Amino acid sequence: MYRTHTCGELRSEHIGQAITLAGWVQKTRDLGGMTFVDLRDRYGITQVVFNMDEDSALCEQARKAGREFVLQVTGEVIERSSKNPNMPTGDIEIKATDLVVLNASKTPPFTIENDTDGGEDLRMTYRYLDLRRQEVRDNIMLRHRVGAATRTYLNSQGFLDIETPFLIKSTPEGARDFVVPSRMNEGQFYALPQSPQTFKQLLMVSGFDKYYQITRCFRDEDLRADRQPEFTQIDCEMAFVEQEDILNTFEGLIRHLFQVEKGIDLPKFERMQFDDAMRLYGSDKPDIRFGMPFSELTDLVQGKGFVVFDSVEAIIGINAKGCADYTRKQLDGLTDWVKRPQIGMKGLVYVKCNADGSFKSSVDKFYSQDDLKAWAERFGAQPGDLILVLAGDLHKTRKALGELRLEMGERLGLRDKGTYKCLWVMDFPLLEWDEDTERYHAMHHPFTSPKPEDLDKIDTAPGEVKANAYDMVINGVEVGGGSIRIHDRGLQSRMFDLLGFSKEEAQAQFGFLMGAFEYGAPPHGGIAFGFDRLCSLFGGADSIRDFIAFPKNNSGRDVMLDAPAPVDEAQLKELAIQLR
Amino acid sequence: MYRTHTCGELRSEHIGQAITLAGWVQKTRDLGGMTFVDLRDRYGITQVVFNMDEDSALCEQARKAGREFVLQVTGEVIERSSKNPNMPTGDIEIKATDLVVLNASKTPPFTIENDTDGGEDLRMTYRYLDLRRQEVRDNIMLRHRVGAATRTYLNSQGFLDIETPFLIKSTPEGARDFVVPSRMNEGQFYALPQSPQTFKQLLMVSGFDKYYQITRCFRDEDLRADRQPEFTQIDCEMAFVEQEDILNTFEGLIRHLFQVEKGIDLPKFERMQFDDAMRLYGSDKPDIRFGMPFSELTDLVQGKGFVVFDSVEAIIGINAKGCADYTRKQLDGLTDWVKRPQIGMKGLVYVKCNADGSFKSSVDKFYSQDDLKAWAERFGAQPGDLILVLAGDLHKTRKALGELRLEMGERLGLRDKGTYKCLWVMDFPLLEWDEDTERYHAMHHPFTSPKPEDLDKIDTAPGEVKANAYDMVINGVEVGGGSIRIHDRGLQSRMFDLLGFSKEEAQAQFGFLMGAFEYGAPPHGGIAFGFDRLCSLFGGADSIRDFIAFPKNNSGRDVMLDAPAPVDEAQLKELAIQLR
Repeated sequence: MYRTHTCGELRSEHIGQAITLAGWVQKTRDLGGMTFVDLRDRYGITQVVFNMDEDSALCEQARKAGREFVLQVTGEVIERSSKNPNMPTGDIEIKATDLVVLNASKTPPFTIENDTDGGEDLRMTYRYLDLRRQEVRDNIMLRHRVGAATRTYLNSQGFLDIETPFLIKSTPEGARDFVVPSRMNEGQFYALPQSPQTFKQLLMVSGFDKYYQITRCFRDEDLRADRQPEFTQIDCEMAFVEQEDILNTFEGLIRHLFQVEKGIDLPKFERMQFDDAMRLYGSDKPDIRFGMPFSELTDLVQGKGFVVFDSVEAIIGINAKGCADYTRKQLDGLTDWVKRPQIGMKGLVYVKCNADGSFKSSVDKFYSQDDLKAWAERFGAQPGDLILVLAGDLHKTRKALGELRLEMGERLGLRDKGTYKCLWVMDFPLLEWDEDTERYHAMHHPFTSPKPEDLDKIDTAPGEVKANAYDMVINGVEVGGGSIRIHDRGLQSRMFDLLGFSKEEAQAQFGFLMGAFEYGAPPHGGIAFGFDRLCSLFGGADSIRDFIAFPKNNSGRDVMLDAPAPVDEAQLKELAIQLR
Repeated sequence: MYRTHTCGELRSEHIGQAITLAGWVQKTRDLGGMTFVDLRDRYGITQVVFNMDEDSALCEQARKAGREFVLQVTGEVIERSSKNPNMPTGDIEIKATDLVVLNASKTPPFTIENDTDGGEDLRMTYRYLDLRRQEVRDNIMLRHRVGAATRTYLNSQGFLDIETPFLIKSTPEGARDFVVPSRMNEGQFYALPQSPQTFKQLLMVSGFDKYYQITRCFRDEDLRADRQPEFTQIDCEMAFVEQEDILNTFEGLIRHLFQVEKGIDLPKFERMQFDDAMRLYGSDKPDIRFGMPFSELTDLVQGKGFVVFDSVEAIIGINAKGCADYTRKQLDGLTDWVKRPQIGMKGLVYVKCNADGSFKSSVDKFYSQDDLKAWAERFGAQPGDLILVLAGDLHKTRKALGELRLEMGERLGLRDKGTYKCLWVMDFPLLEWDEDTERYHAMHHPFTSPKPEDLDKIDTAPGEVKANAYDMVINGVEVGGGSIRIHDRGLQSRMFDLLGFSKEEAQAQFGFLMGAFEYGAPPHGGIAFGFDRLCSLFGGADSIRDFIAFPKNNSGRDVMLDAPAPVDEAQLKELAIQLR
């Protein structure tokens, strides 16, 4: 060992001890007769002092150690004359008696501090230095703790951690697969798994009963801001269970994680029907840290001569409490906000509920004070409130109003990062109609079970069939989702029909699973959590990237490695492929 | 929940309770008035009894349930009249009052028993059924336990579980990479990692100090009997440590696993120099459950007119204790054994140490009783022992005699599966000369540090330089290996020179790592364990395949999925590749 202690553990009770530390130079201060070096490691920072009067050679040596040099320092723990209460080691310092430079360092390309001067690209190129910054290091350590606590909980519940293969078979359904040419099977390809879905179902057929895995998944999608081509899932499945058992088990997991990581005892999770989530919040992942539900005004407002309202499918609004004092400029700003292409609405109608009980709206020309009073009653609006109304196609208007609601929640400070509201969104539709391809897609995936009571609608009104599917939503973020699966070959086959698979396609792609259903498949279901996302939630961050040790950029590149990269012609030849 | 209890937990103390079980029909016995169904799940087997007199309809229904049907049985726990002490649930049975067939099963293609009638190929095609067999299920559960215990130990020692990427960059050094064409970076490829080696070193540069990961690795090699294209490693690295710290830490891990999994307190591991392992056992992974070390006879036996011995580099033997009574036929058998192409020797010389103190050898024509007595003394052979001698090229003879030693150990019952002898083999050579390419290869990998005391030989006699590298060997199986790494850019660069890299190649492939070494890389080192192999060791099996839930066959195929498989032309086009 190059050290007796870490740079985070020495306290007053160690005063007088001879110790050795090893770490990186965070900074050096040269005060004439004294030189102070802040030595940093994973555990903290300890101040080391070199005295010119006592050992000038040693002090000179210390002065030469630049930022990020790796030093081994031997010395005595002494009491600091000016204590630093902001540092855990702030009561002591090390009076150095020996110094070994374990490795030198060039001047790093950016400062190794939370408030670094390095831009994103530079930090990604030197990711190994970026990882030295405390906030990034804390994220990676948080990820370790959340992973460990997940395993502790699931192990204690009798779950088995079972590894499933990474070199599997490509299935055109769903997102695009990454493929891997096989040298030993010329002209053939493996695919990397988008999830272990079929394997975990097979494990249920095998009788393993409670399975989990914290595992990497791969999707070759065009990357959005916060997507990674490889990401990690907490993947779980249980047999002989009903939906309620799964909800309870995994609510228990998340409650455990909040207890361990945040010291928070969460109350029982709220539950909401998918239909209600869409109707009241315009989203299948509503942020319920605040209310501000939608009210529909269509019946109240049509037929009064306002052609904008008369010509649309839906007129819906929210009540922004206490915002009646918004200025013209603020209201214009909100109107511009909803007109942005990302939101795509044509305009915004407002009603101010004045303190004197009167109303002022942008549509005063069409609606009387009594009309507006009726609106206000629908919202339960009080004097001082501001009603915001959008109109248009139902689906689009809900979505836009959902965004506006979040924006108003943000402006009103109703989305506190330290508050956690957990919600199960349930009873998703089984299928969604795709206008482009003119066929149904599975809303969750093709293995999701319809609700038994809706089975008779599967032929007559497939769009109305609800699924035993559920998402876990925390603070408006979907952290996990799952379903009760189909375990009957006939029903699974019917699902593939509905989704437009020919019998041959279904057999070629999922024959092994349908085969397995013929040999005693138990009822089963499960859930998968986005581990990167869950960690970013615990870390109070919006981006998942800083919770991944070596993330890729938005072009799917690892700029540190400079990967992907061309490969040798000989290698391609062995794989029997060539570039086009 | 479809059950109140599992099929493994009911005991006498549950008698009288109303319970519900769910599981698979292991077997049905129809004894006229009574029908017995053995219901199986992951936890065990419970006998269910149906009485024709009491409920003939229910009993008829039970009789129709074939093997591997999934049943839900409700009933009362009653005392068995004829108890079965071989089953944990053997004191009780369930008197059924209700029965639900949760799913039917076709007759499985092989019997779901340890002693199954299914051949390897059939069982791999129906792997989900093979996994129902108790011995396979036990292996998968063992793997879960060993993994969990590994994490418990490493977490308790302050190690951080940090995930490293799977889509990385191809490096021609070492084994062949699997590559993944990038759609978003046309003409470029990711590679799947053969190990997280460079990433774990970067994590040390980042200051994470103690890292581990139980992670998948990939090698596109021609598969030998017990190799898999994807396999799992317990991958570990530590900073600010010397070799001794690593040996102690991971000896601790393995001791912990033996305690938890086997209830065995292992003594301190033995240690052996690589040179001694080769000299005494002809192997870098000697099985030290038994002795039978080599003795060299070259000085004793040359120059006596026996041309076979006079013309060779090495004459080495072992003493098979108590085997002097081997018959002519047995000795001929051993001679044939060493002549097989896998061993490749030209013949075998033996000396029987007779009970009366005389000697009988296959070379009596050339050696007197006194000569043979001198041989026997060199081996410490006693009357009743059998000396077996091989002669030839040193390297080849050692290897062959090593195999013969293992064979004799096997025949003498000295390799008991319940006995565990753990060994560190240390001080491996840094480099090995490759006759084909006429250059040095890294014996461990290019990042392994030479021993400091041998640094001066690196230019003058590179083949003699020893490395700070070590393997952990248990019962003759290499379960792990590692090294202290280079952390100095200059030395790493020198290593790449030695290994025949041009400066440009080294920079293109490992520039990021050498760059990292310029910004304060700490001394570090680590180890990686073959997790599949470790599990098979704990499971007392020779093959790793049955400790992997979904293994591939010797052609790298998953016969259950039928993968790899051709992919759509459209998919290849998107990836900008085509078949040759």
